[in-house]
Amino acid sequence: MRLLELPTPCLVLDRSILERNLAVMSAIVRRHGVAFRPHMKTAKSAEIARLAVAGEAGGIAVSTLAEAEYFGASGFLDITLAVGITPERLDRAAALVARGMELTLITDDPNTAAAIAAHPAPFRALIEIDSGEGRGGVNANSGALLVLGRALGPRLAGVLTHGGHSYAGRSIPEMQRIAEQERSAVVSAAWALRAAFFPCEVVSLGSTPTAMHARKLDGVTEVRAGVYMFNDLFQAEIHSCSRADIAMTVLSSVIGRRPGDNQVLLDAGAIALSKDRSTQSTAHDAGYGLVWGLDGTPRYSECRIESLYQEHGIARGNRPLPFDELKVGTKVRIAPNHACLTAAAYDRYHVVSGTDEVSVIWERVNGW
Amino acid sequence: MRLLELPTPCLVLDRSILERNLAVMSAIVRRHGVAFRPHMKTAKSAEIARLAVAGEAGGIAVSTLAEAEYFGASGFLDITLAVGITPERLDRAAALVARGMELTLITDDPNTAAAIAAHPAPFRALIEIDSGEGRGGVNANSGALLVLGRALGPRLAGVLTHGGHSYAGRSIPEMQRIAEQERSAVVSAAWALRAAFFPCEVVSLGSTPTAMHARKLDGVTEVRAGVYMFNDLFQAEIHSCSRADIAMTVLSSVIGRRPGDNQVLLDAGAIALSKDRSTQSTAHDAGYGLVWGLDGTPRYSECRIESLYQEHGIARGNRPLPFDELKVGTKVRIAPNHACLTAAAYDRYHVVSGTDEVSVIWERVNGW
Repeated sequence: MRLLELPTPCLVLDRSILERNLAVMSAIVRRHGVAFRPHMKTAKSAEIARLAVAGEAGGIAVSTLAEAEYFGASGFLDITLAVGITPERLDRAAALVARGMELTLITDDPNTAAAIAAHPAPFRALIEIDSGEGRGGVNANSGALLVLGRALGPRLAGVLTHGGHSYAGRSIPEMQRIAEQERSAVVSAAWALRAAFFPCEVVSLGSTPTAMHARKLDGVTEVRAGVYMFNDLFQAEIHSCSRADIAMTVLSSVIGRRPGDNQVLLDAGAIALSKDRSTQSTAHDAGYGLVWGLDGTPRYSECRIESLYQEHGIARGNRPLPFDELKVGTKVRIAPNHACLTAAAYDRYHVVSGTDEVSVIWERVNGW
Repeated sequence: MRLLELPTPCLVLDRSILERNLAVMSAIVRRHGVAFRPHMKTAKSAEIARLAVAGEAGGIAVSTLAEAEYFGASGFLDITLAVGITPERLDRAAALVARGMELTLITDDPNTAAAIAAHPAPFRALIEIDSGEGRGGVNANSGALLVLGRALGPRLAGVLTHGGHSYAGRSIPEMQRIAEQERSAVVSAAWALRAAFFPCEVVSLGSTPTAMHARKLDGVTEVRAGVYMFNDLFQAEIHSCSRADIAMTVLSSVIGRRPGDNQVLLDAGAIALSKDRSTQSTAHDAGYGLVWGLDGTPRYSECRIESLYQEHGIARGNRPLPFDELKVGTKVRIAPNHACLTAAAYDRYHVVSGTDEVSVIWERVNGW
């Protein structure tokens, strides 16, 4: 099947770019001599997970129990659920452990830690550390760390942080500084636990920008990253990749033309693309996404999606668009601002390798 | 089953509010003596469509071919696909006609109109008119109208417009003015066609705000609206409803607490809520949504979601939050900015009627 034959909107994944992205991150992390645990929250596909762990220890991270169940059913038995668990979810998580999964949970809450310790299932648990993002996690130097260690008892396996504030960085030196903040926070927490005679085998950190730019990872045992597999316009702006490293695009059809306004109307709207506007705060605001040719190149110069409705996107060129080519029905590919959110609207990838021939369809898991 | 027992995040739909919203819109449109064609793009559920057409002629509007196929399989045989069709999609659409559906397409493109006319399937087609939104459609006074009429030939059934620029209105007089703009544009187009001896049986318009506030609908044969079924924070801001008329909320669990910052972390993130920020341009910016109690009331005063990550939302109260009540695992309900986009992340509704008892689950169709 060729891209021209696909119903739109749908996802196109270029396997050659995907594999290059996987190889780059793997090599970067391996250089530090630490384990790599791909985070599957972006790709949510067993086929992609198998490629991502090739040559690695085999463990993955996920963001929902639905992902843990899906990847467990696909044979992944070393999974870290890297979003804070609640006591109400432990029974559902325990069903995975009962089927042989080594499931690692994270928490920053003493009641939840006590519930994990009291649960019959032999979960492994990491204490979530806030390394500067201010989202989840306790401070590495706070007394809360030891309270959590005591509450988890024999379930305690280590510490985990996510330097998500790297998304606010705009230069490589900033990313290096944030990566060191992420590292020093989680390593400090590990040593604070060990100094109080708690075990702390796992020292886990990661985000695509910090994994990419960390200068040293001393004291760290594993790195997590997810969006690096696909990359997107925002990651290109924050120096995680170049635009040529964007592996996933949305195939879309022209459904209207306004030559007088140098605009085309596309069938990729707010559901198909997400309303993520992350590039707005960067040097190159891409609107809601950039319109590329069917061949995946920016052949329409800089044509960006300026308005988004539920099922319509309005794209405008910064130079005159070739309206003789852009007819109703013409297919284009849209590079997204934020691959994780764009992918979430779809249940499959149409996989190509540099050409317009779809070699295979890979499914993805959604929901919770 | 009770709401407390549901895995989160998930959708909760209050049937008593839904039915009130349906009755209000139906009465408002019936007052004008024109037919009502509920637009199912928001609800995407056969059960809700059956409630929405009760007492009406029975036709519905949809926004994708996937919806047309789903509703067709559920017995709806009078469907208007109210997004511009492409020639490539006609064969797929024709399969519905072959199974007995009266399928009405819309177009503003001469090549597409010719393809519709040349196709063996007896589609009905409406010419899309731009009544001021500047998205799709031709101007009512332009020569393009007659070109399209000629190209469609015997397939021509009328004209259609969507006064989507009503979303930029902020007062009832503005909505009345935009509703009249919508009406006069589509009625002018109808008369221009008739003056040239083209048939124009259908004169269709609609958006929730203009349907709600139109003072007269002379010359119009049918009204379409969709989001009025659920309503949302944005519709409340633009005078389509009050906040008490919001029928659909997202059930979410607290997964973290920051009493020092008066914040809770929720498991409803950017996928669960969408990144729609439409209330930002209104008098009451609701962030990414408002956190209500499990009972669906704003018991946490004004607690709004200020930051959104893939699977995390950070909510902050404008008064001190009751942290003795808001523990990790506590469930809350989130009122969304834009119901259409929020609902798109889910495949079902958990239906309640004023209480916390889930009486039934209704499925919804997603994708294209």
